[in-house]
Amino acid sequence: MSAAATATVTLSTKHNLSLPTNHHINKSNIGFLSENSVRIRPLSVSCSRPVKVLATAAETPVMEASKSKSSAVPTIVDVDLGDRSYPIYIGSGLLNQPDLLQRHIRGKRVLVVTNTTVAPLYLDKVVSALTVGNPNVSVESVILPDGEKYKDMDTLMKVFDKAIESRLDRRCTFVALGGGVIGDMCGYAAASFLRGVNFIQIPTTVMAQVDSSVGGKTGINHRLGKNLIGAFYQPQCVLIDTDTLNTLPDRELASGLAEVIKYGLIRDASFFEWQEKNIHALMARDPDAFAYAIKRSCENKAEVVSQDEKESGLRATLNLGHTFGHAIETSYGYGHWLHGEAVAAGTVMAVDMSYRLGWIDESIVERVNYILKQAKLPTSPPEMMTVDMFKSVMAVDKKVADGLLRLILLKGPLGSCVFTGDYDKKALDETLHAFCKS
Amino acid sequence: MSAAATATVTLSTKHNLSLPTNHHINKSNIGFLSENSVRIRPLSVSCSRPVKVLATAAETPVMEASKSKSSAVPTIVDVDLGDRSYPIYIGSGLLNQPDLLQRHIRGKRVLVVTNTTVAPLYLDKVVSALTVGNPNVSVESVILPDGEKYKDMDTLMKVFDKAIESRLDRRCTFVALGGGVIGDMCGYAAASFLRGVNFIQIPTTVMAQVDSSVGGKTGINHRLGKNLIGAFYQPQCVLIDTDTLNTLPDRELASGLAEVIKYGLIRDASFFEWQEKNIHALMARDPDAFAYAIKRSCENKAEVVSQDEKESGLRATLNLGHTFGHAIETSYGYGHWLHGEAVAAGTVMAVDMSYRLGWIDESIVERVNYILKQAKLPTSPPEMMTVDMFKSVMAVDKKVADGLLRLILLKGPLGSCVFTGDYDKKALDETLHAFCKS
Repeated sequence: MSAAATATVTLSTKHNLSLPTNHHINKSNIGFLSENSVRIRPLSVSCSRPVKVLATAAETPVMEASKSKSSAVPTIVDVDLGDRSYPIYIGSGLLNQPDLLQRHIRGKRVLVVTNTTVAPLYLDKVVSALTVGNPNVSVESVILPDGEKYKDMDTLMKVFDKAIESRLDRRCTFVALGGGVIGDMCGYAAASFLRGVNFIQIPTTVMAQVDSSVGGKTGINHRLGKNLIGAFYQPQCVLIDTDTLNTLPDRELASGLAEVIKYGLIRDASFFEWQEKNIHALMARDPDAFAYAIKRSCENKAEVVSQDEKESGLRATLNLGHTFGHAIETSYGYGHWLHGEAVAAGTVMAVDMSYRLGWIDESIVERVNYILKQAKLPTSPPEMMTVDMFKSVMAVDKKVADGLLRLILLKGPLGSCVFTGDYDKKALDETLHAFCKS
Repeated sequence: MSAAATATVTLSTKHNLSLPTNHHINKSNIGFLSENSVRIRPLSVSCSRPVKVLATAAETPVMEASKSKSSAVPTIVDVDLGDRSYPIYIGSGLLNQPDLLQRHIRGKRVLVVTNTTVAPLYLDKVVSALTVGNPNVSVESVILPDGEKYKDMDTLMKVFDKAIESRLDRRCTFVALGGGVIGDMCGYAAASFLRGVNFIQIPTTVMAQVDSSVGGKTGINHRLGKNLIGAFYQPQCVLIDTDTLNTLPDRELASGLAEVIKYGLIRDASFFEWQEKNIHALMARDPDAFAYAIKRSCENKAEVVSQDEKESGLRATLNLGHTFGHAIETSYGYGHWLHGEAVAAGTVMAVDMSYRLGWIDESIVERVNYILKQAKLPTSPPEMMTVDMFKSVMAVDKKVADGLLRLILLKGPLGSCVFTGDYDKKALDETLHAFCKS
């Protein structure tokens, strides 16, 4: 029995949320494995809430005035990676609790890396959280252009330029303030500057909060492919202030939900059931619903990553829907669809194929389609996609081994999946033809 | 008692070398420590020689013809870093023993990174060693321009370009063939490509063999400073074929000896005494003398790095002479003096200062000067250097902490040093004025 399976959650239910009082990671989730498959086992992730008093009045005197807002106790997910373990703080108003960040600052110099969209919204707030009641700390910032197309070496060099021109030394801390692109670039810069400095993540999109927060993947794109240059590098902490979601565009919000839904499907049936009951609260940006969804997503990912930090097999199960989705992103062109939108359509295709193989009930197919539609996510690929487009991209997928494409497919009751190359190729063909006009 | 202290060395003495049969790391080496100093303790480095049979005829049939040359048994230094441990193979003709490299190749694809100077000399030989009797392995190569000024991001990108255009996957291996610049760049490329692939070093200069072989420091320069961007990343193995020294220019050879001499001075009196007896054999490029000098250097560095992989203090002692030397390199301009030449002059200055502090006998000052002169290394800085030049560069040294410059100085009997900021500043002033005209 894992720690997560016995953790008691005591979030308030003031918004009529249906919140379970405990989680069951059912033994039946891990059945139905065939050869060449990866078995999923829950492991050492603990959830503690409430936590100890986080700041004394003496340490953060100026926060007293806004005490009613800042006294919210964060949910904490501990990511267990030995001496690289770190906490994820989740909650509303956490940027008004300076101690959460300040306890993880080493040295006296901080470099905040953000972009032109996020800086006007949150940079001042973050600088304040880093320095209030802490006059010894000085903060520099570098504001990068916004967008996946700037996730390159030229833009990364601007971070190094700023760090070096500011004469930062090894005891400085880099802070990533933004979505996945900023988190990946700032993390890789932190991994490489002076061969590694401290790093804190403040993700401001659902996608970054539920995906990039856990796993330590950092990096940049090469003109010939995404995320080809980078490092595995863990932060000192991740701070998720759910208030930052108030400024997130609707499509970005929904895109992140695609990953949330994925966690339920691959390994956590009760979480999926909770999502079905609370999808309206999530779409209405209810902060408590989001805090819970982010927490369970991070816990699920942390359990997987704790067992497979460097992605040797199990971690691949996090890519449900991503193989089909990646084909859509590559063929349709990045920027037309958001990542989560492509993943949503890809998930529907993976679920369809699982059903054709006779591995899941029809009811699961219907439930996946229904929840994605409620989340205003696509449930089929763009009309321009052809069978050949899918096949040509999938042929060079990282998960191809010895000419065999391994896929993440659902198998068994809700919340069970396999990572396998051992499936009837006819089912894949049928799925592709069912979703493509040609 | 460390493993090194009891290792028995059984090298042949056919060149009238004075080779000790065992090493003593004397307890007295670690005395004379003051506050703010770092204590040196020998640790788990083992030397095994002879080793098991390295290749069967069935595995490497084509090598039978050259058996007399290739059957030399390498000296092995094991660098003990837990799950990142690796062997250093040292000896003559090792590039004629394909199994040494092939046992460390993972996957079927190899990328050799080398430069325009080394490629014509050794690239074919290395490709042959990688592929002979091993038709499944395919080798790509990228040949970079030679020189410190190309140790930059633009040149590094050529390595990524080649790896990506060649569609290398995570199971490939990068091989660095060349001196320190190639080792540092290839290592950082390996650390970053797909977030980390396997890496083998084949250093071809004395400097790279005795310094870059151990420690895992990789990286590139920024226009504002050296080695500011990089990673700590350990190789799968290091292969040192002492035959490659036959093509090394005299100045490069002597430059590497400055680091060899340093190891004796900071922690290994018997090694320094061996150097005094064998400096003529080293200058005559005697392969057995070099094999021994490289082995003891690697063992000494490995002991230090095993205790302090990420350079938190002890590892700084490896920088004897480097603070003064760095001031020379920076003021005089990189490229005029080789790194080891600047280190030699810097070592003389550090030794002079240690004597002025009353920390060492005059005999040590004389012995250091004498051996460096025999190695045809400079024993004073270039005439253009002024006291102000030294002071301005030393003020921004990485080892300055809270305004105090910490230096590596000799203290006690031969082979003992301290890393300390606790010294009489007058001695530093006197040393600078003694070696500068103004």
